[in-house]
Amino acid sequence: MIPIKKIIEFLDNEVIHIHGNIEKVYIKHLKPIESVDNVTLDWIGLNRINKQQYIEQTIARVILCDPSLIYSDIIQSQNKILIQVKNPKLSLSFVADRFFIKKPDFGLHPDASIHPKAKISKSVFIGSNCSIGDCIIAEGTYIYPNVTIYDGVTIGKNVIIQAGAVIGTDGLGCERKEGGELVKFSHLGGVIIKDNVEIGANCQIARGALSDTIIGKGSKINGLCFIAHNCILGNNVLITGNTMLAGSVKVEDNATIYSGVIIREQRKIGKGAIIGMGSVVTKDVPSGETWLGNPAKEMKK
Amino acid sequence: MIPIKKIIEFLDNEVIHIHGNIEKVYIKHLKPIESVDNVTLDWIGLNRINKQQYIEQTIARVILCDPSLIYSDIIQSQNKILIQVKNPKLSLSFVADRFFIKKPDFGLHPDASIHPKAKISKSVFIGSNCSIGDCIIAEGTYIYPNVTIYDGVTIGKNVIIQAGAVIGTDGLGCERKEGGELVKFSHLGGVIIKDNVEIGANCQIARGALSDTIIGKGSKINGLCFIAHNCILGNNVLITGNTMLAGSVKVEDNATIYSGVIIREQRKIGKGAIIGMGSVVTKDVPSGETWLGNPAKEMKK
Amino acid sequence: MIPIKKIIEFLDNEVIHIHGNIEKVYIKHLKPIESVDNVTLDWIGLNRINKQQYIEQTIARVILCDPSLIYSDIIQSQNKILIQVKNPKLSLSFVADRFFIKKPDFGLHPDASIHPKAKISKSVFIGSNCSIGDCIIAEGTYIYPNVTIYDGVTIGKNVIIQAGAVIGTDGLGCERKEGGELVKFSHLGGVIIKDNVEIGANCQIARGALSDTIIGKGSKINGLCFIAHNCILGNNVLITGNTMLAGSVKVEDNATIYSGVIIREQRKIGKGAIIGMGSVVTKDVPSGETWLGNPAKEMKK
Repeated sequence: MIPIKKIIEFLDNEVIHIHGNIEKVYIKHLKPIESVDNVTLDWIGLNRINKQQYIEQTIARVILCDPSLIYSDIIQSQNKILIQVKNPKLSLSFVADRFFIKKPDFGLHPDASIHPKAKISKSVFIGSNCSIGDCIIAEGTYIYPNVTIYDGVTIGKNVIIQAGAVIGTDGLGCERKEGGELVKFSHLGGVIIKDNVEIGANCQIARGALSDTIIGKGSKINGLCFIAHNCILGNNVLITGNTMLAGSVKVEDNATIYSGVIIREQRKIGKGAIIGMGSVVTKDVPSGETWLGNPAKEMKK
Repeated sequence: MIPIKKIIEFLDNEVIHIHGNIEKVYIKHLKPIESVDNVTLDWIGLNRINKQQYIEQTIARVILCDPSLIYSDIIQSQNKILIQVKNPKLSLSFVADRFFIKKPDFGLHPDASIHPKAKISKSVFIGSNCSIGDCIIAEGTYIYPNVTIYDGVTIGKNVIIQAGAVIGTDGLGCERKEGGELVKFSHLGGVIIKDNVEIGANCQIARGALSDTIIGKGSKINGLCFIAHNCILGNNVLITGNTMLAGSVKVEDNATIYSGVIIREQRKIGKGAIIGMGSVVTKDVPSGETWLGNPAKEMKK
Repeated sequence: MIPIKKIIEFLDNEVIHIHGNIEKVYIKHLKPIESVDNVTLDWIGLNRINKQQYIEQTIARVILCDPSLIYSDIIQSQNKILIQVKNPKLSLSFVADRFFIKKPDFGLHPDASIHPKAKISKSVFIGSNCSIGDCIIAEGTYIYPNVTIYDGVTIGKNVIIQAGAVIGTDGLGCERKEGGELVKFSHLGGVIIKDNVEIGANCQIARGALSDTIIGKGSKINGLCFIAHNCILGNNVLITGNTMLAGSVKVEDNATIYSGVIIREQRKIGKGAIIGMGSVVTKDVPSGETWLGNPAKEMKK
């Protein structure tokens, strides 16, 4: 049981206003809407309908909500506590992370295979059955089980690599000789994954041909994506799953690429651009635009 | 060599009629059409053309076929045996499973890493290099090599999880702050995989945010699929490969989703609906309808 | 430092003409254009613009280039060496492979799990945390970490299988019974991977139902592809990533299938045909044609 005081203290200047008496009130867990009980920290999203009605009816005693909610007589008579924050979903997530999520302890699992020359900082988690090559891994990084990291990969701080991801394979640039035989080009470059990146389960990030493939700071790539050789992603790029960037694609800061997208080699996705799900992108996408379709075209508002 | 009598006994009330003398006839193997010999259990599918001609010409002595085939004088003079069943392909598959497929023995491979608190039933196979978290696995379940199961996953009876699948990763719901920084929401829910489910190789099934991601009884998901956080699949849902269901997608019983499909978050696929290959589904699909295309639309018959 | 003489000797009859004095000239490394220094083996692609200007301005002393470049007075006065070859990119790749790429030594990693009956040639590399069933692997083959190979797979010479790939899973052909229950057909066939094939990271190659799934000689399949049961690929087929071939697809020699393609079951892709990225192929594609789109149609020139 966590004193609600402690949670409020942790949320600190996220909190705009508190209604109700927080003395000796405790939280046991977070629960989905259908299982909320009186020791749940309940919450109500910014865009939900009938918000006022919801907080009157919930069985929970403590509710994270936005400042538009009114501490009505009914709510007061129910002894409820409203913690008003700017973005309840975000605050809930911070609380979950701090009080309810069990992260694995830092350390290298004995069933991981680690190259003797790998430079791994002290505060790193490497899960069971990982295969870690001659690479650099900075502190605060979590590498979940069954991940493969080839030689020549550099991973920054506070990175998360989900299970089964493969980082640093050769690209597969090929030339077809007369007669049809495929000759594969060698790949000497590396992969650089900057701080605070997340790479989803069973992704593949290929190494560069001569220069490096780069995933910029704070970018998040969900599962089953393939980032090919020499792609350069800026900061805070979001890719939501089953997407492929072909060789040398450049994605600028804050772009969002939804699921199941294919982007042609050497194309550039501008700053803050949005690519809709299932798109096939064959042209450069200018900054700030939203493109969609197969082939993708600008979506006018 | 398996006595054909034993096979007929096993097929039991699948068998409608037997023509020919089954005494001292033995089967050695199942073979593709081009390699059939006289000790093969041959078969002929319901929709093949020239079925009568086929059974006259095959070199095999014993043929699984439907009741429309005639035990003609020629066939009789060849001493052939016709085992007439409703669905020869299905009966063949049952025979294959019972007499010709070598399943691994139950047991936990010494090279698997298993959480000390995992609750694993006696009759379970866990392959080499699996990484199994604090989860529950019921009897009759096969988990092939290199699978990763995170904490908080519940797996039912007679489930098959093919190699490299990853069950129970965080979803990657993100909120973009002003300035572009991505804040990831925490995921506290679990994954529930019910009885008789199959999960294909290198799939990712993400855990729910607060409630669970659920794969209903008897559903079959082929390789390289991504089932995102809080998806709820009913019973007997078939997904045939490289498909992504975004967050909170609901798929009702008996729906079929073909390969390379992307379904937008929070959409609902109704009971028995069919989604054609390569579709991008942006709307709810009513029960019993067939949708196709990018974006997907109803396909009228 | 590698004597340039040795490199020229290795390139042998790739070399058309050499300009400049190659005595006592050494190469230290290959570098991307922005990091070229005077000990780099520089190169200039066939289709680059301003080629003559580039070789005058590069800081490198030795440049691989095509025979159209002129050994001008300026270049001569810079003491530069031009090695003229037919295809500089290809020659560079050969040099990289021979002098600069460190391949793992042959041998079976102690952290791999290998079936006691597997027949593995002497000169084979099997990486850490691989799970290798009762299969055959010929000499010169590299199997990177975390790969799973089921029983009944035959792998030829000089094959490369990147990390996390899964070879030989059951196909997932299902029949839906009345009431909706899915019955899975058994798969008794194997997988045959012929010489010089490459299979990308986290791919799935399914075994055949009765006959084998076959990947022809010299074919290259990039990451996250799914080749379903009973597919037959000819020689020198190129598949560039995130592509799915459904059951019994046949691809003839020298075909190229770009990324994110879905091909319907039992379709045939003719010799030398090209399938554009993001295509959904529902019909047979004749030899030599280029098809594109969802659904894919012939692209006229």
